[in-house]
Amino acid sequence: MNNRICKLFKISYPIVQGGMVWTSGWKLASAVSNAGGLGLIGAGSMHPETFELHLQKCQAATTKPFGVNVPLLYPEMERIIALILKYKIPIVFTSAGNPATYTQQLKSAGCTVVHVVSSVKFAQKAEACGVDAVVAEGFEAGGHNGREETTTFTLIPAVSKAVDVPVLAAGGIATGAGILAAMALGAEGVQMGSRFAVTHEASSHAEYKKKVVEAGEGSTVLTLKELTPVRLLKSPFYQAIQEAYASGASVEELRLLLGKGRAKKGIFEGDWEAGEFEIGQAAQLIDSIEDVATVVQQLILDYKQALKRLQDL
Amino acid sequence: MNNRICKLFKISYPIVQGGMVWTSGWKLASAVSNAGGLGLIGAGSMHPETFELHLQKCQAATTKPFGVNVPLLYPEMERIIALILKYKIPIVFTSAGNPATYTQQLKSAGCTVVHVVSSVKFAQKAEACGVDAVVAEGFEAGGHNGREETTTFTLIPAVSKAVDVPVLAAGGIATGAGILAAMALGAEGVQMGSRFAVTHEASSHAEYKKKVVEAGEGSTVLTLKELTPVRLLKSPFYQAIQEAYASGASVEELRLLLGKGRAKKGIFEGDWEAGEFEIGQAAQLIDSIEDVATVVQQLILDYKQALKRLQDL
Repeated sequence: MNNRICKLFKISYPIVQGGMVWTSGWKLASAVSNAGGLGLIGAGSMHPETFELHLQKCQAATTKPFGVNVPLLYPEMERIIALILKYKIPIVFTSAGNPATYTQQLKSAGCTVVHVVSSVKFAQKAEACGVDAVVAEGFEAGGHNGREETTTFTLIPAVSKAVDVPVLAAGGIATGAGILAAMALGAEGVQMGSRFAVTHEASSHAEYKKKVVEAGEGSTVLTLKELTPVRLLKSPFYQAIQEAYASGASVEELRLLLGKGRAKKGIFEGDWEAGEFEIGQAAQLIDSIEDVATVVQQLILDYKQALKRLQDL
Repeated sequence: MNNRICKLFKISYPIVQGGMVWTSGWKLASAVSNAGGLGLIGAGSMHPETFELHLQKCQAATTKPFGVNVPLLYPEMERIIALILKYKIPIVFTSAGNPATYTQQLKSAGCTVVHVVSSVKFAQKAEACGVDAVVAEGFEAGGHNGREETTTFTLIPAVSKAVDVPVLAAGGIATGAGILAAMALGAEGVQMGSRFAVTHEASSHAEYKKKVVEAGEGSTVLTLKELTPVRLLKSPFYQAIQEAYASGASVEELRLLLGKGRAKKGIFEGDWEAGEFEIGQAAQLIDSIEDVATVVQQLILDYKQALKRLQDL
């Protein structure tokens, strides 16, 4: 394939691995890039020292392009930006913040910049800031999510129509048929999180991967909408949230209950009782832990079979 | 096209018009069937006498197959079933209830029976009851909705994998590209509500159609989850619901607030202040009121263009 996304990132397949906290280190990112997609290192859960180590290891592990995801609310942004420039990282995905702040600085340094949005409004704003592409992430996506609750099926055609830059679809995509469906809706590529979070190369905990594989219908929920909406497994921590709601907890009480470090506890330490197990609805479609190379091969095969099915109709 | 859905219903295009309350009378259903899809009369908002009149008029208006949608919680089911058999209606879509109750009776009388579900669990149950197909309806769909909040993007592949009968996708589909995406995900046809609710032939009120056309991003919400979850426009009635939640209203108080006849007030009488304006997230994608024939032609053209785009990648 050789569409705008493949050209922009210099990759074989328009498949981006989401730069997820506690999950997307150099091992995962380099494996995805080596398999022909675009791997992203998730800076959101790394101290600058750790981040630098991952950049070094990723550059040693692949000669292919890879990128980083940086949440713009990151407390030490200046140090992260300096490292991106020092190591000449060619592609930067930004999320959770205002794309006006760093887009031009990164662009001037030669970076390709992509911003993650969950609405047409913010897609247009990102485009006005000069980004090269947007990720449009639907309600079904794991982790932090938008307030409009617009699903991938509605969001992708709306965003694709509203901006000229290429759109990567995210949320609910875990199969090659899903990639094809996203392309039918107007996307020129996809960003997949959940599927890559459940690979051998992901740095998420074995217990986390196991729970995601076991997860069936209705096992995730978008909650804590009064703080930052987040999609997670209905774990014991979620039950505690439910009890707080039932007893009429205030926003401040919810914030105290959430506390700090829940995502690390869940995703990185595998603490089922106390941790946040962030994952998308696509968990329902994921039945096994695989190598990244196997996942990518399956995606391409499934994509081709789905396209053939459509052509034969 | 000539897949299992086209054969099952004897139609040219695998496009079913949802049998919506206060919207889907004989005019809409016959127009959709005449355009090559499958029109459904929505029995849910009709007294048996009215229903009979619509059956008669629809049979006079088209020689093509058409069907009916019957919510299984309908208070006078025996009379509705008797009318379906009297007028030899070939296709019956059932929803909102247990498919075990009437499926075999209708099948014995020669009807094709389809049940509407929002989960894999109920799709399998419907299949076990002997239905000929299922409609799998995602979180983004208008009106009454499931509790799992599974979106079309996740639901369609999951249901398609779990049952052998053909699956019609519903929720978020308003364009030909959307139909193609649904087929890519494993559906063999679609049921579209919102798009057909905003046609000249729909019996919904002009004010209702106008508000849907004006609706933009984030203008619908799934609410009243403690009663029956329903997706509607954020109208003044929804603001009243929000105020009730904010003041800690009980389930009983919510039930009193909802009262009776809200959907009629909104959809049929166009009462923006007091009515329920039920519609799907696809409202965001609908910009004009059209004739049914124009809508269907546009859908087919858009489908073909989207397929060509995929083939050219």
